[in-house]
Amino acid sequence: MYQIESMKSVYFDNAATTSIRPEVLEAMVEVMRNIPGNPSSTHAYGRKAKGLIENARKTIAKLLNVSAGELVFTSGGTEADNLIINSVVRDLGVRHIITSPIEHHAVVHVVEEMQKEYDVKVSHVKINPCGSVDVENLEELLHESTEKTEKTLVSLMHINNEIGNMLDIDAVCALCKEHDALFHSDMVQSIGHFEVDLKATPVDFVAASAHKFHGPKGVGFAYIRKNSGLRPLIFGGGQERGSRAGTEAVHNIVGMEKALQISCEKMEEERAKIEGLKTYFIEKLRTEIPEVKLNGNCADASKSTYTLINACLPIPPDKALMT
Amino acid sequence: MYQIESMKSVYFDNAATTSIRPEVLEAMVEVMRNIPGNPSSTHAYGRKAKGLIENARKTIAKLLNVSAGELVFTSGGTEADNLIINSVVRDLGVRHIITSPIEHHAVVHVVEEMQKEYDVKVSHVKINPCGSVDVENLEELLHESTEKTEKTLVSLMHINNEIGNMLDIDAVCALCKEHDALFHSDMVQSIGHFEVDLKATPVDFVAASAHKFHGPKGVGFAYIRKNSGLRPLIFGGGQERGSRAGTEAVHNIVGMEKALQISCEKMEEERAKIEGLKTYFIEKLRTEIPEVKLNGNCADASKSTYTLINACLPIPPDKALMT
Repeated sequence: MYQIESMKSVYFDNAATTSIRPEVLEAMVEVMRNIPGNPSSTHAYGRKAKGLIENARKTIAKLLNVSAGELVFTSGGTEADNLIINSVVRDLGVRHIITSPIEHHAVVHVVEEMQKEYDVKVSHVKINPCGSVDVENLEELLHESTEKTEKTLVSLMHINNEIGNMLDIDAVCALCKEHDALFHSDMVQSIGHFEVDLKATPVDFVAASAHKFHGPKGVGFAYIRKNSGLRPLIFGGGQERGSRAGTEAVHNIVGMEKALQISCEKMEEERAKIEGLKTYFIEKLRTEIPEVKLNGNCADASKSTYTLINACLPIPPDKALMT
Repeated sequence: MYQIESMKSVYFDNAATTSIRPEVLEAMVEVMRNIPGNPSSTHAYGRKAKGLIENARKTIAKLLNVSAGELVFTSGGTEADNLIINSVVRDLGVRHIITSPIEHHAVVHVVEEMQKEYDVKVSHVKINPCGSVDVENLEELLHESTEKTEKTLVSLMHINNEIGNMLDIDAVCALCKEHDALFHSDMVQSIGHFEVDLKATPVDFVAASAHKFHGPKGVGFAYIRKNSGLRPLIFGGGQERGSRAGTEAVHNIVGMEKALQISCEKMEEERAKIEGLKTYFIEKLRTEIPEVKLNGNCADASKSTYTLINACLPIPPDKALMT
């Protein structure tokens, strides 16, 4: 008993959510205390709140090398994925979605819904034994799609949230361009942890979430390439230039801005530290538990995010009967 | 110039948004600082966060006299209105919506979208000269609907956010029951300001927003009567018992709980104060500017919320040319 009480607690679930940075919390409290206006009000209180949102948009746009007008603030990554996938089907007439069987539920379940509601054809790209997308198979699927002149969306996440495998996103971008398919990537695990330049990597649609990079929960954004023709998921007031209705969570948006700014500033420093921890952890696992099995590409730094480890631990002989 | 600088600023736009109560801010900061887990994580950090959400649900359910399982937390009132109206059409087969021409945009625009996407018939109930819903006309529309055995939703807000008129919600409930129509009410302006007992007033669906009762922006809830068969607007993880995907904004939900709790506790006291201010303001307006015209039912306390005044001020003769 005394052992448990004296145990130091270590949080090992930063892919699920991260704690809020103190500077982020401070910025949020400042907004909640001193900027009470509704951004849609045209008086001074409202304009002040609106100004904060538009500043946040500019800051984030600059960090991702996009235009401010291409960002839509949402209640999180899930809403962003839903907004994008729903609208490409409903408004752009996409009738074929190529995705993978190991996407986040925010993609899997909205794709299923589109299949049901709009009779969209869904193809699942093969996953090779190490858990990566089989890019050759993707090319075959795109080729078939082109021959049938189907309007196609490819939806593949940049970093898998369970095993940490990284997609060769530039290769997928090039294939989608070549076959005239739209490309959506859930980048919830990469934004804030990797340098993302959406001019250099011309994905059409991206979903991101603040609480994965030490920002608040309940806020994220969709990147929607200019003139894409997407329409809202949530209708109502004219917020977000008509792309997403509802009074903006100003404190959360400012928190997200601050969190992404700091994450980008400290990226190299934090990456070095976390990479070191990952290497150390893998070494220790292998020394102490030689039967450990690292899943996915965990042990290959060029194909796996430094932020994730996925391993199978052997079942101790005395526990084997419990399984 | 000196006059402007020395002017005391008075915030007159609490129907647009209210400032956050200090106790609410304190509760939110406590969560952001000390409860970092993702409510979907099954470890202790996650369970702690999940516990806060379920406590909030119980508190709010008790205040509205409903079951906790009938509340779905959303990113605000607009999302709640969208979730409800979208799902009654998509999932319950409603093909006729009776609403009014002076609803909030969160209702107006989603109804338009349903008209476009699902070919839903939309009827607008007449508004009488003082800006109130013509309940006799509503009865006629419901009667026609019953004769045609159309599956019908009535969507009428409880308190109009511009003119402050209050709907006779019990009469509308009774009419809807009688004609077997579903009834949705945007109660964004009433929850937190009036006692709301959803057992006594059996509306089927309600939308509410925290920032209208001194809670944070970016959070609200939908009340969805048990076994209604509604499905999500946002698909993904299994949050909100499968009714609304996306990592929950724990700090915002706790803030909303605290705000509603305090608003209900202090309701009589604050109502007396605000009613006094309204009476004083109307008296002053009438004395100082005899040409003032009060709109809607503003001057009739039994038909207008104590929280709103809508008035036309005369144009001073020297400014008349500017119009």
